[in-house]
Amino acid sequence: MSRTVLMLPGDGIGPEIVAEAEKVLHKINEQFSLGLSFESGLVGGAAIDATDSPLPDETLEKATKADAILLGAVGGPQWDSLPMARRPEKGLLGLRSNLELFANLRPAILYPQLASASSLKPEVVSGLDILIVRELTGGIYFGQPRGVRELESGERQGYNTYAYTESEIRRIGRVAFEAAQQRGRKLCSVDKANVLEVTVLWREIMNDLRREYPDVELSHMYVDNAAMQLVRAPKQFDVIVTGNMFGDILSDEAAMLTGSIGMLPSASLNSEKQGMYEPCHGSAPDIAGKGIANPLATILSAAMMLRYSLNEEKAAEAIEAAVSKVLDQGLRTADIMSEGATRVSTREMGEAVLTAL
Amino acid sequence: MSRTVLMLPGDGIGPEIVAEAEKVLHKINEQFSLGLSFESGLVGGAAIDATDSPLPDETLEKATKADAILLGAVGGPQWDSLPMARRPEKGLLGLRSNLELFANLRPAILYPQLASASSLKPEVVSGLDILIVRELTGGIYFGQPRGVRELESGERQGYNTYAYTESEIRRIGRVAFEAAQQRGRKLCSVDKANVLEVTVLWREIMNDLRREYPDVELSHMYVDNAAMQLVRAPKQFDVIVTGNMFGDILSDEAAMLTGSIGMLPSASLNSEKQGMYEPCHGSAPDIAGKGIANPLATILSAAMMLRYSLNEEKAAEAIEAAVSKVLDQGLRTADIMSEGATRVSTREMGEAVLTAL
Ligand SMILES: CC(C)[C@H](C(=O)O)[C@@H](O)C(=O)O
Ligand SMILES: CC(C)[C@H](C(=O)O)[C@@H](O)C(=O)O
Repeated sequence: MSRTVLMLPGDGIGPEIVAEAEKVLHKINEQFSLGLSFESGLVGGAAIDATDSPLPDETLEKATKADAILLGAVGGPQWDSLPMARRPEKGLLGLRSNLELFANLRPAILYPQLASASSLKPEVVSGLDILIVRELTGGIYFGQPRGVRELESGERQGYNTYAYTESEIRRIGRVAFEAAQQRGRKLCSVDKANVLEVTVLWREIMNDLRREYPDVELSHMYVDNAAMQLVRAPKQFDVIVTGNMFGDILSDEAAMLTGSIGMLPSASLNSEKQGMYEPCHGSAPDIAGKGIANPLATILSAAMMLRYSLNEEKAAEAIEAAVSKVLDQGLRTADIMSEGATRVSTREMGEAVLTAL
Repeated sequence: MSRTVLMLPGDGIGPEIVAEAEKVLHKINEQFSLGLSFESGLVGGAAIDATDSPLPDETLEKATKADAILLGAVGGPQWDSLPMARRPEKGLLGLRSNLELFANLRPAILYPQLASASSLKPEVVSGLDILIVRELTGGIYFGQPRGVRELESGERQGYNTYAYTESEIRRIGRVAFEAAQQRGRKLCSVDKANVLEVTVLWREIMNDLRREYPDVELSHMYVDNAAMQLVRAPKQFDVIVTGNMFGDILSDEAAMLTGSIGMLPSASLNSEKQGMYEPCHGSAPDIAGKGIANPLATILSAAMMLRYSLNEEKAAEAIEAAVSKVLDQGLRTADIMSEGATRVSTREMGEAVLTAL
């Protein structure tokens, strides 16, 4: 049985960083005789330029058939003035929604070798290891109705709908409780239940689930307080579960606590464990094409892919060990550079990981 | 012409901290012959316990007539299981909406005397001085329809509506541009225009306004990036303008960057400059009644009140100078305590400000 991995480089620094991750995957495929085959496709701005659609049918078809997807990043200023339906982001959102990748796992880990990169005091972040579980196919990202309408007064009103059903909440809740069981057994559910009805239901369902996972300690926090607590004392958290919009905000905030967002991978899974894997950082158009982007978040995303979608834990660990080794060697791309380290390019970093494998 | 200030202590530490601010206001009223008269009223949980309503008619009437309101805080665990319409928060939201207090000004300032309280590195936050302008009477906080409904499938769905009209956006935009003119002339508008239609309209109107304020440099940032940039390099911001929900999250995050949220005041204004003033921190039920809460955010809120609603700049400055003086004297409540300083109670801190006046 051969398994297929679809590479979707996307925009900005996407192609550069995915190229390095692809080399790593090829090598690990041989070393561990994984029997993976590789395909590639267009998504985002690159797809708009070539086909006029951010998610061409061909890409969606390949994605549906693939066992796992490795995505670079989408978006850039040249597509910012397009109407909403034809923006690069729609390619990403379309993949998430068509494949029902409802469970987005975003670890925020401080690498000891990079501790000084954080803007927080060392004692506040040393040893930081949080997992944010973000719902990814519902909430205000996909809620209907939405749009801009003209009111009777003649002025326009923009509107979106923030909605969740019980079953949508329950399935992401289960993923979060199970992740907590594998980790520190503490789960914090983030909502705004003092203001938003949709999150009153969210909190109710999370409380229901508690009975199925008596070994996990569940707490609740309002989103404004969570944004504060992440800055004040982030190590109080183990696993955080929240909706699509709050998860977008809090996972980026949490990632930045580490100071090295160029190191952070993410996974988006459906109920068959089919998954899309991507770095937490974006397409960084300002440094695209310069060969200075950090490929490690994408390489670590490939490791997550091996672990979660392809069930190849040993291969995943081999990649993670190789990344740790190049950090120990003092190799750094520009974003994580510090005094005394050796500055390397995107390609040199990729080669160093290959050598370390 | 006599002017009236309504004191609404509310819940938790509210009564303790408002009591100190009230003493300060009484003294400044005499010193500067301001001719202020004072009233008080019930709101939040305290009002629920006494009248069964979080915003009794009597309070709303007094509030409507008052020139300015000083509020402590609302909410606490004993009211958390009440239905949404009868929660303490509805008292606060009802005041905001009935008085049309659409412009919420939340400064995040690092007091040099308290620099060590921040969880961020000194070089990242020293001299920090950001103003967040949050829209306060629209957006998803007040959008209709909202609630929990049963779907045909039999399961429940929670839903809320995030909506803004052009005029709602324009009036908060003007407040923000004008605030930027008084400060560093840089305005960053935060939205999620790559996903949410309502914020596409938001961005369009902000761009329109730019023409009226050519001396202000306007930029746009997605909310996830803003949450990140506040952690990475907060001093890049001067004024931030955003909607109700994003403003709730980002203003708390920004406040916590200073490490001393017990110091931060806020103002909520309508188009007649009638205003409600309150500390940025909440009701802190865990320390209520212990006499250890920090009254300075409330005292500084009273100063903001003198400045914005009562047009008494000198009196405002006198209070701010007195607060700075007690900090210089090394007096600290528990929340801002550090080695070598003198720990004082809520009342002692209030008395010290009175003496410094
Ligand atoms: C590009 C954008 C649509 C996307 C999102 O908001 O989900 C990104 O910010 C992310 O977090 O993956
Ligand atoms: C108490 C709550 C309703 C309120 C809000 O969300 O606006 C508070 O968090 C605030 O920021 O003033």
